[in-house]
Amino acid sequence: MPPTSIKSRFGSRIRSLRDDRGFSQEELAERAGLHRNYVGGVERGERNIALENIVKLAKALSIPTRDLFTDFP
Amino acid sequence: MPPTSIKSRFGSRIRSLRDDRGFSQEELAERAGLHRNYVGGVERGERNIALENIVKLAKALSIPTRDLFTDFP
Repeated sequence: MPPTSIKSRFGSRIRSLRDDRGFSQEELAERAGLHRNYVGGVERGERNIALENIVKLAKALSIPTRDLFTDFP
Repeated sequence: MPPTSIKSRFGSRIRSLRDDRGFSQEELAERAGLHRNYVGGVERGERNIALENIVKLAKALSIPTRDLFTDFP
């Protein structure tokens, strides 16, 4: 089994938190000021998302930024 | 006083952790597999560093990725 990539791990975390809140991708994107397609790409592990957008997603999910990384090494 | 930007906040955190460990910028860069000039730019808050490099810096500093974000909203 190949190791889970950093981008996939982050994407799964975003999707899980979004689902917990009952947000659609579109709703999360709008709250974060990002494009829906971009958020979809992040969730699929296709995007090497940068710092400022990471912080936007944390705010949109109402959690401290560090809590996006609880599954990380 | 202008609010501290996200990039500057992250850069200060990296510099502080690097100093704690007694690493030079060059040493940290080498451990992380990044260029010294790039690490300098991150520390100065000039770079919107992306996920994969954030994780590389955390590993090079021997801390969990989430601990890079203790000062963050």
